[in-house]
Amino acid sequence: MLFGSIEAGGTKFVCAIGNEKMEILERVSIETREPEATIKDVCEFFAPYNHQLDGVGVGSFGPIDGQKSSKTYGHILASPKVKWQGFDLIGALVEFFNCPIEWTTDVNAAAFGEYHYGHGKDSNSLVYYTIGTGIGAGAIQDDQFIGGVNFTEMGHMLVTRHPEDTAASSCPFHHNCLEGVASGPAIGIRAGKAAQLLEEDDYLWDIEAEYIAQCVHNTTLMLAPEVIVLGGGVMQQEHLLPKVKKAFEKVLNGYVTHPTVDEYIKTPKLGNNAATIGCFVLAQKAFEKAK
Amino acid sequence: MLFGSIEAGGTKFVCAIGNEKMEILERVSIETREPEATIKDVCEFFAPYNHQLDGVGVGSFGPIDGQKSSKTYGHILASPKVKWQGFDLIGALVEFFNCPIEWTTDVNAAAFGEYHYGHGKDSNSLVYYTIGTGIGAGAIQDDQFIGGVNFTEMGHMLVTRHPEDTAASSCPFHHNCLEGVASGPAIGIRAGKAAQLLEEDDYLWDIEAEYIAQCVHNTTLMLAPEVIVLGGGVMQQEHLLPKVKKAFEKVLNGYVTHPTVDEYIKTPKLGNNAATIGCFVLAQKAFEKAK
Repeated sequence: MLFGSIEAGGTKFVCAIGNEKMEILERVSIETREPEATIKDVCEFFAPYNHQLDGVGVGSFGPIDGQKSSKTYGHILASPKVKWQGFDLIGALVEFFNCPIEWTTDVNAAAFGEYHYGHGKDSNSLVYYTIGTGIGAGAIQDDQFIGGVNFTEMGHMLVTRHPEDTAASSCPFHHNCLEGVASGPAIGIRAGKAAQLLEEDDYLWDIEAEYIAQCVHNTTLMLAPEVIVLGGGVMQQEHLLPKVKKAFEKVLNGYVTHPTVDEYIKTPKLGNNAATIGCFVLAQKAFEKAK
Repeated sequence: MLFGSIEAGGTKFVCAIGNEKMEILERVSIETREPEATIKDVCEFFAPYNHQLDGVGVGSFGPIDGQKSSKTYGHILASPKVKWQGFDLIGALVEFFNCPIEWTTDVNAAAFGEYHYGHGKDSNSLVYYTIGTGIGAGAIQDDQFIGGVNFTEMGHMLVTRHPEDTAASSCPFHHNCLEGVASGPAIGIRAGKAAQLLEEDDYLWDIEAEYIAQCVHNTTLMLAPEVIVLGGGVMQQEHLLPKVKKAFEKVLNGYVTHPTVDEYIKTPKLGNNAATIGCFVLAQKAFEKAK
Protein backbone atom coordinates (compact mmCIF):
# COMPACT_ATOMS: atom_id res chain seq x y z
CA MET A 1 0.00 0.00 0.00
CA LEU A 2 1.05 3.58 -0.61
CA PHE A 3 0.20 6.55 1.61
CA GLY A 4 0.79 10.27 1.26
CA SER A 5 1.68 12.59 4.14
CA ILE A 6 1.47 16.38 4.14
CA GLU A 7 2.69 18.39 7.11
CA ALA A 8 1.43 21.81 6.16
CA GLY A 9 3.47 24.28 8.18
CA GLY A 10 3.81 28.04 8.22
CA THR A 11 7.41 27.91 6.99
CA LYS A 12 7.47 24.64 5.02
CA PHE A 13 5.24 21.90 3.68
CA VAL A 14 6.84 18.51 4.29
CA CYS A 15 5.43 15.96 1.83
CA ALA A 16 6.17 12.25 1.99
CA ILE A 17 5.30 8.89 0.52
CA GLY A 18 5.17 5.85 2.79
CA ASN A 19 3.93 2.29 2.98
CA GLU A 20 1.80 0.26 5.39
CA LYS A 21 4.89 -0.46 7.50
CA MET A 22 5.07 3.32 8.06
CA GLU A 23 8.40 3.41 6.23
CA ILE A 24 9.20 6.78 4.67
CA LEU A 25 10.02 6.06 1.02
CA GLU A 26 10.45 9.63 -0.18
CA ARG A 27 10.20 13.03 1.42
CA VAL A 28 10.56 16.64 0.28
CA SER A 29 10.37 19.99 1.99
CA ILE A 30 8.62 22.80 0.13
CA GLU A 31 8.96 26.41 1.25
CA THR A 32 5.64 27.96 2.27
CA ARG A 33 4.95 30.91 -0.01
CA GLU A 34 1.56 32.13 -1.14
CA PRO A 35 -1.11 29.43 -1.21
CA GLU A 36 -1.42 28.80 -4.98
CA ALA A 37 2.34 28.48 -5.65
CA THR A 38 2.82 26.28 -2.59
CA ILE A 39 -0.06 23.95 -3.40
CA LYS A 40 1.17 23.74 -7.01
CA ASP A 41 4.54 22.40 -5.81
CA VAL A 42 2.83 19.99 -3.41
CA CYS A 43 0.71 18.62 -6.25
CA GLU A 44 3.73 18.29 -8.52
CA PHE A 45 5.47 16.15 -5.90
CA PHE A 46 2.47 13.84 -5.55
CA ALA A 47 1.41 13.83 -9.24
CA PRO A 48 3.43 10.72 -10.26
CA TYR A 49 1.80 8.76 -7.40
CA ASN A 50 -1.71 10.19 -7.58
CA HIS A 51 -3.26 7.08 -9.12
CA GLN A 52 -1.41 4.70 -6.82
CA LEU A 53 -2.03 6.33 -3.45
CA ASP A 54 -4.46 4.51 -1.14
CA GLY A 55 -4.93 7.46 1.20
CA VAL A 56 -3.50 10.82 2.22
CA GLY A 57 -3.11 12.27 5.72
CA VAL A 58 -2.72 15.98 6.37
CA GLY A 59 -1.53 17.78 9.51
CA SER A 60 -2.05 21.49 9.08
CA PHE A 61 -0.87 24.69 10.71
CA GLY A 62 -3.60 26.84 12.11
CA PRO A 63 -5.84 28.24 13.12
CA ILE A 64 -7.87 26.07 10.76
CA ASP A 65 -11.61 25.54 10.90
CA GLY A 66 -12.40 22.06 12.17
CA GLN A 67 -16.11 22.49 12.80
CA LYS A 68 -17.79 20.09 10.41
CA SER A 69 -20.99 22.13 10.33
CA SER A 70 -19.10 25.32 9.38
CA LYS A 71 -19.18 26.89 5.92
CA THR A 72 -15.44 27.45 6.17
CA TYR A 73 -14.60 23.88 7.29
CA GLY A 74 -11.00 23.17 6.33
CA HIS A 75 -10.18 26.83 5.64
CA ILE A 76 -7.26 28.66 7.27
CA LEU A 77 -8.71 31.22 9.69
CA ALA A 78 -7.18 34.45 11.10
CA SER A 79 -3.55 33.44 10.51
CA PRO A 80 -0.66 35.89 10.87
CA LYS A 81 0.19 34.64 7.34
CA VAL A 82 -2.21 37.07 5.70
CA LYS A 83 -2.26 35.52 2.23
CA TRP A 84 -3.44 32.23 3.72
CA GLN A 85 -6.37 33.76 5.58
CA GLY A 86 -9.57 32.27 4.26
CA PHE A 87 -7.74 29.82 1.96
CA ASP A 88 -9.55 26.51 1.59
CA LEU A 89 -6.50 24.30 2.18
CA ILE A 90 -8.35 21.03 2.65
CA GLY A 91 -10.68 21.78 -0.25
CA ALA A 92 -7.70 22.33 -2.58
CA LEU A 93 -6.10 19.03 -1.56
CA VAL A 94 -9.35 17.05 -1.75
CA GLU A 95 -9.80 18.37 -5.30
CA PHE A 96 -6.33 17.27 -6.40
CA PHE A 97 -6.09 13.78 -4.93
CA ASN A 98 -7.89 10.75 -6.32
CA CYS A 99 -7.94 8.98 -2.95
CA PRO A 100 -9.58 9.53 0.44
CA ILE A 101 -8.09 12.16 2.76
CA GLU A 102 -8.10 12.52 6.55
CA TRP A 103 -6.81 15.69 8.13
CA THR A 104 -6.18 17.31 11.48
CA THR A 105 -3.83 19.89 13.00
CA ASP A 106 -0.03 19.57 12.79
CA VAL A 107 0.30 18.84 16.49
CA ASN A 108 -2.56 16.33 16.47
CA ALA A 109 -0.77 14.55 13.62
CA ALA A 110 2.47 14.39 15.62
CA ALA A 111 0.53 13.13 18.65
CA PHE A 112 -1.10 10.48 16.46
CA GLY A 113 2.32 9.26 15.29
CA GLU A 114 3.58 8.95 18.87
CA TYR A 115 0.32 7.30 19.94
CA HIS A 116 0.47 4.59 17.29
CA TYR A 117 4.20 4.03 16.79
CA GLY A 118 6.01 5.88 19.57
CA HIS A 119 5.57 6.10 23.33
CA GLY A 120 1.83 5.48 23.08
CA LYS A 121 2.17 2.19 21.21
CA ASP A 122 0.86 0.09 24.11
CA SER A 123 -1.40 2.78 25.62
CA ASN A 124 -5.01 3.82 25.19
CA SER A 125 -4.25 7.51 25.63
CA LEU A 126 -1.46 10.03 25.11
CA VAL A 127 -0.96 13.79 25.15
CA TYR A 128 1.82 15.33 23.08
CA TYR A 129 3.01 18.90 23.69
CA THR A 130 5.28 20.80 21.38
CA ILE A 131 7.06 23.56 23.28
CA GLY A 132 8.88 25.83 20.86
CA THR A 133 8.04 29.09 19.09
CA GLY A 134 4.51 28.47 20.28
CA ILE A 135 2.97 25.77 22.46
CA GLY A 136 0.37 23.36 21.17
CA ALA A 137 -0.80 19.88 22.04
CA GLY A 138 -2.61 16.92 20.62
CA ALA A 139 -4.53 14.61 22.96
CA ILE A 140 -5.74 11.16 22.03
CA GLN A 141 -8.00 8.74 23.88
CA ASP A 142 -9.03 5.39 22.44
CA ASP A 143 -7.74 6.40 19.00
CA GLN A 144 -9.88 9.59 18.94
CA PHE A 145 -8.62 13.16 19.15
CA ILE A 146 -9.81 15.11 22.18
CA GLY A 147 -11.72 18.18 20.97
CA GLY A 148 -15.50 18.34 21.14
CA VAL A 149 -16.62 20.97 18.72
CA ASN A 150 -13.26 22.17 17.47
CA PHE A 151 -9.52 21.61 17.80
CA THR A 152 -8.12 22.18 21.27
CA GLU A 153 -5.71 25.02 22.08
CA MET A 154 -4.06 23.53 25.15
CA GLY A 155 -1.02 25.78 24.90
CA HIS A 156 -3.20 28.64 26.11
CA MET A 157 -4.21 27.07 29.44
CA LEU A 158 -3.57 29.47 32.29
CA VAL A 159 -0.64 29.00 34.67
CA THR A 160 0.32 30.81 37.85
CA ARG A 161 3.20 33.23 37.44
CA HIS A 162 6.37 32.58 39.40
CA PRO A 163 6.52 35.36 42.05
CA GLU A 164 9.78 36.69 40.60
CA ASP A 165 8.61 36.56 37.00
CA THR A 166 7.44 39.99 35.87
CA ALA A 167 8.44 39.57 32.22
CA ALA A 168 5.98 40.49 29.48
CA SER A 169 3.94 37.63 28.04
CA SER A 170 4.78 36.52 24.50
CA CYS A 171 1.07 35.86 23.90
CA PRO A 172 -0.87 38.90 22.73
CA PHE A 173 -4.07 37.50 24.28
CA HIS A 174 -3.08 36.32 27.76
CA HIS A 175 -0.76 37.64 30.45
CA ASN A 176 -0.26 34.22 32.02
CA CYS A 177 -1.09 31.42 29.59
CA LEU A 178 1.43 28.63 29.12
CA GLU A 179 2.53 29.81 25.68
CA GLY A 180 2.86 33.38 26.94
CA VAL A 181 5.28 32.45 29.71
CA ALA A 182 6.94 29.18 28.65
CA SER A 183 7.43 29.21 24.86
CA GLY A 184 10.88 29.87 23.39
CA PRO A 185 10.10 33.57 22.75
CA ALA A 186 8.76 33.95 26.31
CA ILE A 187 12.04 32.62 27.73
CA GLY A 188 13.83 35.03 25.42
CA ILE A 189 11.86 38.02 26.70
CA ARG A 190 12.57 37.02 30.31
CA ALA A 191 16.27 36.41 29.66
CA GLY A 192 16.88 39.37 27.41
CA LYS A 193 18.55 36.99 24.98
CA ALA A 194 17.70 33.86 23.00
CA ALA A 195 16.73 30.87 25.14
CA GLN A 196 19.51 28.79 23.54
CA LEU A 197 22.11 31.19 24.94
CA LEU A 198 21.10 30.57 28.57
CA GLU A 199 23.52 28.54 30.67
CA GLU A 200 22.26 25.17 31.89
CA ASP A 201 22.44 26.29 35.51
CA ASP A 202 20.53 29.53 34.94
CA TYR A 203 17.64 29.71 37.41
CA LEU A 204 15.33 30.71 34.55
CA TRP A 205 15.26 27.03 33.62
CA ASP A 206 13.81 26.29 37.06
CA ILE A 207 11.04 28.80 36.40
CA GLU A 208 10.49 27.21 32.98
CA ALA A 209 10.30 23.75 34.56
CA GLU A 210 7.69 24.97 37.05
CA TYR A 211 5.51 26.30 34.26
CA ILE A 212 5.71 23.05 32.32
CA ALA A 213 5.02 21.13 35.55
CA GLN A 214 1.77 23.08 36.01
CA CYS A 215 0.83 22.06 32.47
CA VAL A 216 1.59 18.39 33.19
CA HIS A 217 -0.42 18.65 36.44
CA ASN A 218 -3.49 20.07 34.67
CA THR A 219 -3.19 17.56 31.85
CA THR A 220 -3.01 14.71 34.35
CA LEU A 221 -6.13 15.83 36.23
CA MET A 222 -8.19 16.90 33.23
CA LEU A 223 -7.41 14.07 30.81
CA ALA A 224 -5.78 11.28 32.85
CA PRO A 225 -3.63 10.07 29.94
CA GLU A 226 -1.33 7.08 30.16
CA VAL A 227 1.66 9.02 28.89
CA ILE A 228 2.62 12.65 28.29
CA VAL A 229 5.19 13.44 25.60
CA LEU A 230 7.00 16.78 25.70
CA GLY A 231 8.56 17.76 22.38
CA GLY A 232 9.59 20.90 20.52
CA GLY A 233 12.70 23.05 20.47
CA VAL A 234 12.65 24.08 24.14
CA MET A 235 12.61 20.43 25.28
CA GLN A 236 15.80 19.79 23.32
CA GLN A 237 17.53 21.31 26.35
CA GLU A 238 18.17 17.90 27.86
CA HIS A 239 18.70 19.21 31.39
CA LEU A 240 15.11 20.48 31.43
CA LEU A 241 13.19 17.18 31.56
CA PRO A 242 14.52 16.05 34.98
CA LYS A 243 13.62 19.48 36.40
CA VAL A 244 10.09 19.19 34.97
CA LYS A 245 9.61 15.74 36.51
CA LYS A 246 10.73 16.97 39.92
CA ALA A 247 8.56 20.10 39.79
CA PHE A 248 5.55 18.02 38.66
CA GLU A 249 5.83 15.65 41.59
CA LYS A 250 6.07 18.63 43.91
CA VAL A 251 2.98 20.39 42.55
CA LEU A 252 0.81 17.25 42.23
CA ASN A 253 1.78 16.40 45.81
CA GLY A 254 0.72 12.76 45.55
CA TYR A 255 -2.91 13.61 44.90
CA VAL A 256 -3.48 10.97 42.23
CA THR A 257 -1.47 7.91 41.44
CA HIS A 258 0.33 7.75 38.13
CA PRO A 259 3.15 5.61 36.76
CA THR A 260 6.66 6.65 37.85
CA VAL A 261 7.54 10.00 36.28
CA ASP A 262 10.14 8.27 34.11
CA GLU A 263 7.46 6.09 32.57
CA TYR A 264 4.90 8.88 32.46
CA ILE A 265 6.69 11.98 31.12
CA LYS A 266 8.71 11.41 27.97
CA THR A 267 10.44 13.21 25.16
CA PRO A 268 9.34 12.07 21.67
CA LYS A 269 10.35 8.62 20.52
CA LEU A 270 9.84 9.35 16.84
CA GLY A 271 11.64 12.70 16.89
CA ASN A 272 11.00 14.71 13.74
CA ASN A 273 9.17 11.81 12.09
CA ALA A 274 6.20 11.91 14.46
CA ALA A 275 3.97 14.07 12.27
CA THR A 276 4.90 12.28 9.02
CA ILE A 277 4.07 8.91 10.55
CA GLY A 278 0.93 10.32 12.15
CA CYS A 279 -0.19 11.47 8.70
CA PHE A 280 0.45 8.00 7.27
CA VAL A 281 -1.79 6.54 10.00
CA LEU A 282 -4.45 9.12 9.13
CA ALA A 283 -4.09 8.11 5.48
CA GLN A 284 -4.59 4.46 6.44
CA LYS A 285 -7.72 5.46 8.38
CA ALA A 286 -9.03 7.39 5.39
CA PHE A 287 -8.50 4.30 3.22
CA GLU A 288 -10.25 2.01 5.69
CA LYS A 289 -13.19 4.38 6.14
CA ALA A 290 -13.70 4.58 2.38
CA LYS A 291 -13.64 0.80 1.89
CA MET B 1 -38.03 -1.76 29.90
CA LEU B 2 -36.95 -1.33 33.49
CA PHE B 3 -33.70 0.23 34.64
CA GLY B 4 -32.07 0.63 38.03
CA SER B 5 -30.09 3.69 39.13
CA ILE B 6 -27.74 3.91 42.10
CA GLU B 7 -26.11 7.20 43.05
CA ALA B 8 -23.67 6.02 45.65
CA GLY B 9 -22.76 9.05 47.73
CA GLY B 10 -20.78 9.62 50.87
CA THR B 11 -23.87 10.73 52.83
CA LYS B 12 -26.64 8.86 51.01
CA PHE B 13 -27.31 6.23 48.38
CA VAL B 14 -30.12 7.34 46.08
CA CYS B 15 -31.70 4.31 44.41
CA ALA B 16 -34.29 4.54 41.66
CA ILE B 17 -36.30 2.54 39.16
CA GLY B 18 -37.01 4.01 35.75
CA ASN B 19 -38.14 3.13 32.27
CA GLU B 20 -36.82 3.67 28.74
CA LYS B 21 -38.47 7.10 28.65
CA MET B 22 -36.17 7.98 31.55
CA GLU B 23 -39.16 8.46 33.81
CA ILE B 24 -38.41 7.96 37.49
CA LEU B 25 -40.97 5.43 38.73
CA GLU B 26 -39.71 5.03 42.27
CA ARG B 27 -36.86 6.48 44.27
CA VAL B 28 -35.50 6.11 47.79
CA SER B 29 -32.66 7.69 49.72
CA ILE B 30 -30.61 5.43 52.00
CA GLU B 31 -28.26 6.86 54.59
CA THR B 32 -24.65 5.88 54.00
CA ARG B 33 -23.43 3.91 57.02
CA GLU B 34 -20.86 1.14 56.97
CA PRO B 35 -20.64 -0.73 53.66
CA GLU B 36 -22.39 -4.00 54.56
CA ALA B 37 -25.45 -2.37 56.18
CA THR B 38 -25.77 0.17 53.38
CA ILE B 39 -25.51 -2.38 50.57
CA LYS B 40 -28.02 -4.60 52.39
CA ASP B 41 -30.60 -1.78 52.28
CA VAL B 42 -29.81 -1.06 48.63
CA CYS B 43 -30.37 -4.71 47.76
CA GLU B 44 -33.62 -4.81 49.71
CA PHE B 45 -34.94 -1.90 47.68
CA PHE B 46 -34.07 -3.56 44.38
CA ALA B 47 -34.94 -7.15 45.38
CA PRO B 48 -38.58 -7.07 44.16
CA TYR B 49 -37.36 -5.89 40.73
CA ASN B 50 -34.21 -7.94 40.42
CA HIS B 51 -35.61 -10.39 37.88
CA GLN B 52 -37.29 -7.67 35.83
CA LEU B 53 -34.45 -5.15 35.52
CA ASP B 54 -32.85 -4.87 32.08
CA GLY B 55 -29.81 -3.01 33.32
CA VAL B 56 -28.38 -1.05 36.24
CA GLY B 57 -26.31 2.14 36.16
CA VAL B 58 -24.13 3.23 39.07
CA GLY B 59 -22.53 6.62 39.76
CA SER B 60 -20.20 6.30 42.71
CA PHE B 61 -18.44 8.61 45.15
CA GLY B 62 -14.70 8.31 45.12
CA PRO B 63 -11.93 7.98 44.90
CA ILE B 64 -12.81 4.69 43.23
CA ASP B 65 -10.47 2.57 41.12
CA GLY B 66 -11.43 2.82 37.46
CA GLN B 67 -8.36 1.17 35.95
CA LYS B 68 -9.64 -1.95 34.24
CA SER B 69 -6.29 -3.71 34.56
CA SER B 70 -6.13 -3.07 38.29
CA LYS B 71 -6.64 -5.77 40.93
CA THR B 72 -8.76 -3.32 42.91
CA TYR B 73 -10.95 -2.25 39.95
CA GLY B 74 -14.26 -0.98 41.32
CA HIS B 75 -12.97 -0.72 44.89
CA ILE B 76 -13.21 2.46 46.97
CA LEU B 77 -9.67 3.79 47.44
CA ALA B 78 -8.23 6.09 50.14
CA SER B 79 -11.56 7.65 51.14
CA PRO B 80 -11.97 9.85 54.22
CA LYS B 81 -14.79 7.39 54.99
CA VAL B 82 -12.43 4.90 56.57
CA LYS B 83 -14.80 1.91 56.70
CA TRP B 84 -15.27 2.14 52.93
CA GLN B 85 -11.55 2.07 52.15
CA GLY B 86 -10.81 -1.00 50.08
CA PHE B 87 -14.49 -2.00 49.85
CA ASP B 88 -15.34 -3.66 46.53
CA LEU B 89 -18.48 -1.61 45.83
CA ILE B 90 -18.92 -2.59 42.20
CA GLY B 91 -18.12 -6.23 42.95
CA ALA B 92 -20.85 -6.32 45.63
CA LEU B 93 -23.44 -4.87 43.24
CA VAL B 94 -22.46 -7.10 40.32
CA GLU B 95 -22.88 -10.09 42.61
CA PHE B 96 -26.39 -9.06 43.67
CA PHE B 97 -27.95 -8.06 40.36
CA ASN B 98 -29.07 -10.50 37.70
CA CYS B 99 -28.62 -7.98 34.89
CA PRO B 100 -25.72 -6.13 33.26
CA ILE B 101 -24.20 -3.16 35.11
CA GLU B 102 -22.37 -0.07 33.86
CA TRP B 103 -20.73 2.25 36.36
CA THR B 104 -18.76 5.46 36.59
CA THR B 105 -18.23 8.29 39.08
CA ASP B 106 -21.12 10.31 40.54
CA VAL B 107 -20.17 13.42 38.62
CA ASN B 108 -19.69 11.52 35.36
CA ALA B 109 -23.20 10.10 35.84
CA ALA B 110 -24.65 13.59 36.30
CA ALA B 111 -22.75 14.80 33.24
CA PHE B 112 -24.13 11.84 31.27
CA GLY B 113 -27.68 12.78 32.24
CA GLU B 114 -27.18 16.37 31.10
CA TYR B 115 -25.45 15.20 27.91
CA HIS B 116 -28.29 12.91 26.86
CA TYR B 117 -31.39 14.63 28.22
CA GLY B 118 -30.34 18.11 29.40
CA HIS B 119 -28.27 20.89 27.88
CA GLY B 120 -26.19 18.46 25.84
CA LYS B 121 -29.14 16.85 24.09
CA ASP B 122 -28.22 18.23 20.67
CA SER B 123 -24.47 18.38 21.24
CA ASN B 124 -21.55 16.02 20.70
CA SER B 125 -19.72 17.15 23.82
CA LEU B 126 -20.38 18.57 27.28
CA VAL B 127 -18.51 19.22 30.51
CA TYR B 128 -20.42 19.31 33.80
CA TYR B 129 -18.89 20.80 36.95
CA THR B 130 -20.35 20.43 40.40
CA ILE B 131 -19.14 23.24 42.65
CA GLY B 132 -20.12 22.54 46.23
CA THR B 133 -18.42 20.92 49.20
CA GLY B 134 -15.83 19.77 46.69
CA ILE B 135 -15.38 20.39 42.98
CA GLY B 136 -15.57 17.63 40.41
CA ALA B 137 -16.41 17.34 36.75
CA GLY B 138 -17.51 14.88 34.13
CA ALA B 139 -16.55 15.45 30.51
CA ILE B 140 -18.13 13.69 27.56
CA GLN B 141 -17.18 13.66 23.90
CA ASP B 142 -19.06 11.59 21.32
CA ASP B 143 -20.82 9.66 24.06
CA GLN B 144 -17.54 8.66 25.74
CA PHE B 145 -16.22 9.87 29.08
CA ILE B 146 -12.95 11.78 28.94
CA GLY B 147 -10.38 9.96 31.07
CA GLY B 148 -7.62 7.92 29.49
CA VAL B 149 -6.35 5.53 32.10
CA ASN B 150 -8.51 6.60 35.03
CA PHE B 151 -11.25 9.00 36.05
CA THR B 152 -10.39 12.65 35.73
CA GLU B 153 -10.04 14.96 38.74
CA MET B 154 -10.72 18.27 37.03
CA GLY B 155 -11.60 20.05 40.27
CA HIS B 156 -7.92 19.99 41.15
CA MET B 157 -6.70 21.94 38.13
CA LEU B 158 -4.49 24.84 39.20
CA VAL B 159 -5.75 28.42 39.14
CA THR B 160 -3.98 31.70 39.74
CA ARG B 161 -4.71 33.26 43.13
CA HIS B 162 -6.42 36.64 43.18
CA PRO B 163 -3.75 39.09 44.44
CA GLU B 164 -5.82 39.93 47.52
CA ASP B 165 -6.67 36.33 48.35
CA THR B 166 -4.37 35.05 51.05
CA ALA B 167 -6.89 32.64 52.61
CA ALA B 168 -5.84 29.09 53.38
CA SER B 169 -6.73 26.48 50.75
CA SER B 170 -9.49 24.03 51.62
CA CYS B 171 -7.60 21.31 49.71
CA PRO B 172 -5.00 19.51 51.82
CA PHE B 173 -2.95 18.77 48.68
CA HIS B 174 -2.80 22.05 46.76
CA HIS B 175 -2.45 25.70 47.74
CA ASN B 176 -4.12 26.95 44.58
CA CYS B 177 -6.23 24.27 42.94
CA LEU B 178 -9.80 25.13 41.96
CA GLU B 179 -11.36 23.08 44.76
CA GLY B 180 -8.96 24.59 47.28
CA VAL B 181 -9.95 28.18 46.48
CA ALA B 182 -13.47 28.00 44.97
CA SER B 183 -15.42 25.23 46.73
CA GLY B 184 -18.04 26.11 49.35
CA PRO B 185 -15.63 25.45 52.25
CA ALA B 186 -12.94 27.58 50.55
CA ILE B 187 -15.35 30.52 50.33
CA GLY B 188 -16.19 29.91 53.98
CA ILE B 189 -12.53 30.06 55.02
CA ARG B 190 -12.04 33.30 53.09
CA ALA B 191 -15.22 34.88 54.48
CA GLY B 192 -14.88 33.67 58.04
CA LYS B 193 -18.49 32.47 57.82
CA ALA B 194 -20.57 30.10 55.72
CA ALA B 195 -20.72 31.02 52.03
CA GLN B 196 -24.53 31.17 52.18
CA LEU B 197 -24.31 34.02 54.70
CA LEU B 198 -22.41 36.30 52.31
CA GLU B 199 -24.36 39.23 50.86
CA GLU B 200 -24.92 39.19 47.11
CA ASP B 201 -22.83 42.31 46.64
CA ASP B 202 -19.87 41.02 48.67
CA TYR B 203 -16.70 41.34 46.56
CA LEU B 204 -15.79 37.78 47.51
CA TRP B 205 -18.29 36.68 44.87
CA ASP B 206 -16.24 38.55 42.27
CA ILE B 207 -13.16 36.62 43.36
CA GLU B 208 -15.19 33.40 43.20
CA ALA B 209 -16.37 34.26 39.69
CA GLU B 210 -12.79 34.87 38.55
CA TYR B 211 -11.73 31.44 39.79
CA ILE B 212 -14.61 29.70 38.03
CA ALA B 213 -13.85 31.75 34.90
CA GLN B 214 -10.28 30.40 34.88
CA CYS B 215 -11.76 26.91 35.05
CA VAL B 216 -14.10 27.60 32.13
CA HIS B 217 -11.17 29.07 30.17
CA ASN B 218 -9.00 25.99 30.69
CA THR B 219 -11.89 23.67 29.92
CA THR B 220 -12.59 25.54 26.69
CA LEU B 221 -9.00 25.35 25.50
CA MET B 222 -8.24 21.81 26.68
CA LEU B 223 -11.48 20.06 25.69
CA ALA B 224 -13.33 22.41 23.31
CA PRO B 225 -16.78 21.21 24.44
CA GLU B 226 -20.01 22.47 22.93
CA VAL B 227 -21.48 23.35 26.31
CA ILE B 228 -20.28 23.75 29.90
CA VAL B 229 -22.76 23.14 32.72
CA LEU B 230 -22.01 24.57 36.17
CA GLY B 231 -23.94 22.90 38.97
CA GLY B 232 -23.62 22.25 42.70
CA GLY B 233 -24.54 24.22 45.79
CA VAL B 234 -22.32 27.23 45.14
CA MET B 235 -23.93 27.83 41.74
CA GLN B 236 -27.33 28.04 43.38
CA GLN B 237 -26.33 31.62 44.15
CA GLU B 238 -28.10 32.93 41.07
CA HIS B 239 -26.18 36.19 40.94
CA LEU B 240 -22.95 34.25 40.40
CA LEU B 241 -23.50 32.96 36.84
CA PRO B 242 -23.57 36.40 35.14
CA LYS B 243 -20.35 37.31 36.97
CA VAL B 244 -18.72 34.07 35.76
CA LYS B 245 -19.72 34.74 32.15
CA LYS B 246 -18.29 38.24 32.26
CA ALA B 247 -15.04 37.14 33.90
CA PHE B 248 -14.67 34.29 31.38
CA GLU B 249 -14.98 36.63 28.40
CA LYS B 250 -12.38 38.90 29.99
CA VAL B 251 -9.84 36.13 30.61
CA LEU B 252 -10.32 34.35 27.27
CA ASN B 253 -9.94 37.74 25.57
CA GLY B 254 -11.44 36.60 22.26
CA TYR B 255 -8.73 34.02 21.63
CA VAL B 256 -11.05 31.32 20.32
CA THR B 257 -14.56 31.58 19.03
CA HIS B 258 -17.33 29.94 21.01
CA PRO B 259 -21.11 30.29 21.06
CA THR B 260 -22.44 33.31 22.99
CA VAL B 261 -21.76 32.84 26.71
CA ASP B 262 -25.50 32.46 27.32
CA GLU B 263 -25.59 29.45 25.00
CA TYR B 264 -22.25 28.13 26.19
CA ILE B 265 -22.25 28.35 30.00
CA LYS B 266 -25.33 26.92 31.67
CA THR B 267 -26.70 25.81 35.01
CA PRO B 268 -28.12 22.25 35.01
CA LYS B 269 -31.32 21.63 33.11
CA LEU B 270 -32.11 18.42 34.95
CA GLY B 271 -31.39 19.81 38.43
CA ASN B 272 -31.13 17.06 41.02
CA ASN B 273 -32.27 14.40 38.55
CA ALA B 274 -29.16 14.60 36.39
CA ALA B 275 -27.30 11.72 38.06
CA THR B 276 -30.39 9.47 38.31
CA ILE B 277 -31.12 9.94 34.61
CA GLY B 278 -27.44 9.53 33.76
CA CYS B 279 -27.50 6.18 35.58
CA PHE B 280 -30.58 5.08 33.62
CA VAL B 281 -28.70 5.86 30.38
CA LEU B 282 -25.75 3.84 31.68
CA ALA B 283 -28.17 1.01 32.46
CA GLN B 284 -29.52 1.17 28.93
CA LYS B 285 -25.96 0.99 27.59
CA ALA B 286 -25.23 -2.00 29.79
CA PHE B 287 -28.33 -3.71 28.39
CA GLU B 288 -27.39 -2.95 24.79
CA LYS B 289 -23.79 -4.09 25.25
CA ALA B 290 -24.95 -7.39 26.69
CA LYS B 291 -27.40 -8.10 23.87
